[in-house]
This record gives sequence, C-alpha cells and structure tokens, in this order.
Amino acid sequence: MSAGTGPFLAACRREPVPHTPVWFMRQAGRALPEYRRLRGSGSILQAIADPELSAEITLQPVRRYGVDAAILFSDIVVPVWATGFGVEIVPGRGPVVEHPIRSPADLRRLRPLEPEGDTGFVLETVRLVARELAPEVALIGFAGAPFTVASYLVEGGPSRDFARVKTLMHSDPTTWHELVERLAQMAIDSLSAQVAAGVDAVQLFDSWAGSLSPADYERFALPATRRVLDAVRALGVPTVLFGVGTGELLGLMSSAGPDVMGIDWRVPLDVARERVGPRRAVQGNLDPAVCLAPFEVVADETRAVLARAGTAAGHVFNLGHGVLPETDPGILGAVVELVHAEGRAGVRP
Amino acid sequence: MSAGTGPFLAACRREPVPHTPVWFMRQAGRALPEYRRLRGSGSILQAIADPELSAEITLQPVRRYGVDAAILFSDIVVPVWATGFGVEIVPGRGPVVEHPIRSPADLRRLRPLEPEGDTGFVLETVRLVARELAPEVALIGFAGAPFTVASYLVEGGPSRDFARVKTLMHSDPTTWHELVERLAQMAIDSLSAQVAAGVDAVQLFDSWAGSLSPADYERFALPATRRVLDAVRALGVPTVLFGVGTGELLGLMSSAGPDVMGIDWRVPLDVARERVGPRRAVQGNLDPAVCLAPFEVVADETRAVLARAGTAAGHVFNLGHGVLPETDPGILGAVVELVHAEGRAGVRP
Repeated sequence: MSAGTGPFLAACRREPVPHTPVWFMRQAGRALPEYRRLRGSGSILQAIADPELSAEITLQPVRRYGVDAAILFSDIVVPVWATGFGVEIVPGRGPVVEHPIRSPADLRRLRPLEPEGDTGFVLETVRLVARELAPEVALIGFAGAPFTVASYLVEGGPSRDFARVKTLMHSDPTTWHELVERLAQMAIDSLSAQVAAGVDAVQLFDSWAGSLSPADYERFALPATRRVLDAVRALGVPTVLFGVGTGELLGLMSSAGPDVMGIDWRVPLDVARERVGPRRAVQGNLDPAVCLAPFEVVADETRAVLARAGTAAGHVFNLGHGVLPETDPGILGAVVELVHAEGRAGVRP
Repeated sequence: MSAGTGPFLAACRREPVPHTPVWFMRQAGRALPEYRRLRGSGSILQAIADPELSAEITLQPVRRYGVDAAILFSDIVVPVWATGFGVEIVPGRGPVVEHPIRSPADLRRLRPLEPEGDTGFVLETVRLVARELAPEVALIGFAGAPFTVASYLVEGGPSRDFARVKTLMHSDPTTWHELVERLAQMAIDSLSAQVAAGVDAVQLFDSWAGSLSPADYERFALPATRRVLDAVRALGVPTVLFGVGTGELLGLMSSAGPDVMGIDWRVPLDVARERVGPRRAVQGNLDPAVCLAPFEVVADETRAVLARAGTAAGHVFNLGHGVLPETDPGILGAVVELVHAEGRAGVRP
C-alpha cells in the first residue's frame, strides 16, 4: 500500500488538492488505438490472465491522458471465472454464464476464492503497475458488488429487466442472501489481496443496482455491499461505490460506507452532494455520449460539471459511465487539461 | 369523446373515486394466452393494421382482468411507419429502422401524417373498441414523445447508450430541433384524430427520456413534448406522460403540463408526489418483475404502493413499466381485485 500522496487520494479523503483529479471509467480500452493494437484478437479474459499485457494496458491511458489514477485492467467476473465457474465475456454483449444459478443446489458450484492461487495474474499485474506509476498517480483496484455479480450469475448474461434475479430474491430470499454473502466474501478476499499487492484505492462496481427499487436495494443488496466496504475500510484504503441510474439510491448507498460516491450523468453533482451528505466525496459525472460532440460542447459540459461540484474539495472528475469505444482520445486528453487548469481548489463560479 | 365517467378519468382529474383505478402497461400482449392464440405468427405491424384484430386484442385484458382502462393496441412507431419511413418491429428486439436519420437531408424522408389516409386502421380500431367498452371503462390512446421516437429514427433501433442521438443533438441542434418539431406535429395529428375517433385520454410515452441529463432534457426534449401536451389538453382529454428512469426529470416533465405523471418503480410514490407537485395525479408503480414472485409477495408490494400513494385521490395504479411476457395472468387479475378492494378513497395507513 502506498503512502497515499497525490490529488486523487487527497480528494477521496476530502483533503486539499492542487487541482481536481481526473480519471475515466474504461479509460483503458477500445477508444485507444494503442490498446486495439496490443489486444489483437485474443479474448479479454486471456488478456487479463497475462500480467505483462494487462500492466501495459493499465498504463496506456496514464501516458496518453495524464490522468491522476490508473485503474487495473480486469473485469468484475474475474474472481468467479478464476474459481472455475463457467463464464465468458462476449464482445459487444458482456459476461455470459454457461450454467446460471437458479436453485439452492447451484450455490455449491461457487467455491471460495484463493486470491494467489486463482488470480495470481491479477496480483502480479498490480505489482508490475505499482512499480511503474509515479507516486502521485494512484492505482485503483476493483471488484463487482455482490448484487451486480449475482445478476450475471442468475440471469446468465446482461439483462434489460433483471426478471430472473428479482424473482429469485423475492421467491427464495434465503438462497439469495446465501448467494450474495458468498459473493461478498469473494470480493473481500480479492480486494484484500489487491491492496496487499499495492493498489491505493478500491472501486466497487454495483453497476446495475439502479434497477432496484429503494426498498429492494435496502433489503437485498445493501447489507452485502456494506460488508465489503467495511472490510476494505479496515485495510486503510479509500473506497468508491458506483452504479448507473442510482439517483433514488444515493442516500442508501452512502449509508453502506464508501468514502466516495460515484454519480452518473443523470444527477447533477450539487443534487448528488445533498443526497450523499458532507462526509463523502463525489466522483463524476460528464455524460460519456457528450464526448462524441465537438470539443466546444465538451468543454462547456465539463465546466458545467466543475461548477455543479461547487468546490474542488471532495470531487474526483470522471465520466458518468464508461468511455464509449467510438470516443476520440484527443477529446479525453483535452478534458484532462481543462479539468487540471480550471478545477482549482476553492469555490467555483 | 366520451362524457368522461368512470374511476380512471376521475383519478386523472384528481376527483373523488369509488376505488383506485388500475390498468397495466402492455396489458394486451404476450402474457395472455388468448393474445398468443389470436396473434399467430404474423408481424405486430400487420396485426395493428387490422382493426378487427386490434380491437379484439385491446379488449382481451378488459375482459380478463376487469381493469378500469383499455389501451389501444398499437405502437409508437406506427405514424412514421404509416407515412412510409422504413421501420419494422423485430420480435425480442424492438423497432428497427432501415435508413436512420443522420443528416439534415434525411429529414426530407419524414413527411407529415395524414391521419385518416395513413392510419385509418388505427382510427377504425378506436371506433370498434369505443363501441364495445362499458361507459365506466376508459379507452386510452397514445403516441411516442418526440425524443423517444427520434431516438429510434437516429439510432436505427433500441440503444444502450443513445450515443448517436446525443451526438446529433449536441453537434447539430438545428437539425435536432427540426426533427423533434416534425415528430411533435406528427404526434399532435395522430392524437387529435384518435380523440376525434373516441379515445377518452391520451398517454405520451417518453420511454427513454431517462437517458438524458436534466439539462439536456430541458433543452432538447421538453419543448416538443410541451407542444404535444398543450395541443391535446386543448381537446379536453386528460394526458399522462411516462418514461422509465426519470426520477431526476419528474419536476421538468411535470412542467410540460400532463394531468398525470407516470412513475417507474424506482421512485416511491410519496417522493414522486413531492417532485410532481399537488396539481398532477400520479400513475404507477409496482415493479413488473415483482409480478413473477408468489402472490403473497405481490400482494405485499401492491399494498406498499397503495400506502405510498397516500390517498386514492389522484392515483392510477399501474406497473412501473410494461407487463413482462412471462407474467402469470392470474397474478395480474388478483392485483386488480386487491387494488379495487383496498384502494378506497381516503387516506390509507
């Protein structure tokens, strides 16, 4: 674990920063020509299993954009995949599960994670990247939150309506809770090992939590998420919790205890700050689709995000979701420059 | 136009009701065995073009469930399709457009709607259904809101990120505004003809408005929606405005002037009432996926919706989105009975 210098970690802790830190979800990915060259035609899980390759992919956006944080090149299904639960990532579709979880008996197929034995390649990637990064650039590790990982395991793949996962939680809450408890333990084991290997902060992706009503989130998703965040906090690194479409859940998600709440583009940051409360930083929230417009438009929208954040204190600039593959990397580089130049400490107009 | 009796119309106008009225979005559809038998293997657009068949499909859920409103069996892309803009509805996917709109020149392919000439079959369906319905059961006509119809025409089909439609609005606002103005006029012409043919109320589906930030919604979607609602209000029938994931937009959408705001399951109705204000009724908002659970669970969640609504005044019970095809019709029938029995006027516990 690093000493925790640099603007990203300071912002997570709501300490003074020289400028608003910035990174982009999916900054390492298809928008970068150097990524497309390096990845070639192998599968994404093969690339993740190759520490030299993954370390290089993780570092590419730091070199290209000058962002304040690198995020480990990996995927939220890696722990379940690495323990032998059949899953593949289908290009253009997402994680697809061979035999979804549909009954209590299916839980037996989900064995505990042995981080070094099962995912030694991830930890080696962390060590390689940590060695290369300048001390002021943070390395972010991550895991999927139990609900979101469970949604893939139960639905069998990406879903529009989450009908099967909601049916399971409502029809058989005992099996549901057992499932998310196992996934919480897996996330804790993975994140603890990542921290030991050298990540400076951790993001928990509860990408699809926004499909739940507040009552269902509170009952079926929040407790397991809280357990993961509690365990990581005890390790002394800042935590970020993120999902899309979570406007109605921000208060509940904050109560799970992250240091930073990730906000999608639907909730203006001043509104988000009210829901999240003064004890959490916020991360976000430029609409990724805006980055496909001419730079004058992107610049205006970037300034609007900075203005809504109100102050550089406790604000990590990011997109409201992942970089779209068709994004021009030149635009993202210019956004970083703009945020660094205009996102100074103190109240903004 | 009917005299406007019955609980649905009274609730839309926030007048006293004998019981909370209830209907379900997509109540006429694949969940009903009698629908699957009748539809056979023809395309949905072929079925819509057949007034006898469409009228029967519209009436099936009224007979089966005893709901307080029928909704015309049609689709939001029918007006553009009927004017010769190439679009088909692909089962399991949704509307797919042959040559999407990408430039100002493409707007020429979007000609004005002549309701009787282009969509006489829709108006004939309205007349057939209106003749069959008991006076206390309302007939709801509908149209797609300009933004949502435009999203199909620009994206070429359903979208996850709405990247192309957002790129067009940000890069070429002149073309964008011309596009939504044309679609607003088309919706006005279609809805005016539906009202003349006998619908008692109108729902405007802005299904995907929730993909927009509040600032983008206000600038790029709200003005055209307001124009449609103004025009329909002048005809004297109540209007409902609905979209999913619109929690942050409810105040802005209310300012467009609907009598009733449709609320998805993410926003508890008491919170929605605050955002919508006292001058609008609310419609919703049981999570459609809950209806796949055992009835004890569905009953609890139905009661929770009634309790959050606070009073039967100005509340139309509905799901928070369309009926899922795998829903047991027996469950929906039992929900109607429960809402009618327990959703009485006056404040609820």
